[in-house]
Amino acid sequence: MSGIFYGVGVGPGDPELLTLKAINAIKSSDVVIAPRTEKKDESTALSIARPYIQEGTEILELVFPMNYNSQALSDAWISNKNAILELLDSGKKVAFLTLGDPMLYSTYMYVYRLLEDSHHEIINIPGVNSFSAIGNRLGVPLAEGGDILSIVPATIDEDRLEKILALSDNVVLMKVYKNYTDIVEKLNKHGMVENAVMVSKCGLEGEEIVHDLAAAAGTQKVNYLSTILTKRSKVSKHALA
Amino acid sequence: MSGIFYGVGVGPGDPELLTLKAINAIKSSDVVIAPRTEKKDESTALSIARPYIQEGTEILELVFPMNYNSQALSDAWISNKNAILELLDSGKKVAFLTLGDPMLYSTYMYVYRLLEDSHHEIINIPGVNSFSAIGNRLGVPLAEGGDILSIVPATIDEDRLEKILALSDNVVLMKVYKNYTDIVEKLNKHGMVENAVMVSKCGLEGEEIVHDLAAAAGTQKVNYLSTILTKRSKVSKHALA
Repeated sequence: MSGIFYGVGVGPGDPELLTLKAINAIKSSDVVIAPRTEKKDESTALSIARPYIQEGTEILELVFPMNYNSQALSDAWISNKNAILELLDSGKKVAFLTLGDPMLYSTYMYVYRLLEDSHHEIINIPGVNSFSAIGNRLGVPLAEGGDILSIVPATIDEDRLEKILALSDNVVLMKVYKNYTDIVEKLNKHGMVENAVMVSKCGLEGEEIVHDLAAAAGTQKVNYLSTILTKRSKVSKHALA
Repeated sequence: MSGIFYGVGVGPGDPELLTLKAINAIKSSDVVIAPRTEKKDESTALSIARPYIQEGTEILELVFPMNYNSQALSDAWISNKNAILELLDSGKKVAFLTLGDPMLYSTYMYVYRLLEDSHHEIINIPGVNSFSAIGNRLGVPLAEGGDILSIVPATIDEDRLEKILALSDNVVLMKVYKNYTDIVEKLNKHGMVENAVMVSKCGLEGEEIVHDLAAAAGTQKVNYLSTILTKRSKVSKHALA
């Protein structure tokens, strides 16, 4: 038989920020799969989607290890792939939940590649990105006019970070954590610290917003993976008088 | 009296890609404002949102000129601002529609700045970006692992374009049109033409998808503002074996 596999972006945290298409996919699915890492107690994506999961829907939390070296990794992924294929082969509709958007820094993309060659229909449903949610919440434009916006994992090497800060008008730094003080120093060097704002747990319980990154650099403790939005300090050539 | 102003991202085109929050804002509003340019016959954002506009809701199409030099511009914007404030002062809920996301390359940001200092509540509601919709539709990752993703208006000068192509792992080129052949040449020079795909009118009537940009460069006629997704040609170091 032939099933349907939905890759569902559940957005950044607020259950109201799922799209209607995502909600309909979750409601109509026989099985909802939530990926999780070994360490975490529960899947964040699952708790965001929970209001839309119908009674009687099967919920499956699968662990997808993110370390690519061991045999254990390979075994876990193959076992997960087979579990999903078995559901699809029996004609079921399966929704695979993804935080944010399925095509941006997600585990889902690897799952998608594993299933791409199967004969089952696969439907990817985009979601609102965390940086869009932050920009809208704070009223901070991500980019305007002819600006370049770069999305940068804070873990890239220092040389590339400096080059991209020098070249972009606007930068989103993802996954800021232990290297926070180094990051602020580089933002400062490239005229990008004055307009920076750092947010963790946007829209979720325990949300934190830091506006003065330079002042906080020595003292601020970054407890969670945080996101920094910033732009070069200048009077925008696009601003209205 | 005090009104509520919603900046509503309606997403890339499919009415099912509005968020529940956006749909609720539109449904509960007394007035829906759709921005348009002088040239166009109808507002695309309005046609996307139309399924959710309730009977009896007032629809207001306002022209926001994008030429910043003339007195006419200034007059039009002030007149629009006053029209919106009058609605809010009378206690109305007003939804301002924006294609894609309100904080990314939108007219809405300028409107937001004009109203920011008023005492009315303003709620910005994020939307799905067009490039996310394209990536999901085609099953093409926008970025993975430690990749840099740059969002670049195709109208930036050649020197900056070359630098950002050389530095980024993944690039979204927005608003590709007349300079299409030049763009393809630069993508080719930086090893970014093999994995490129160009899409116009994604998810809308008349959608066009071009996979072989190099072959099409001489002959392809780009009829509409198009978007190119691309990434450097290499075996991804994050790909599973």
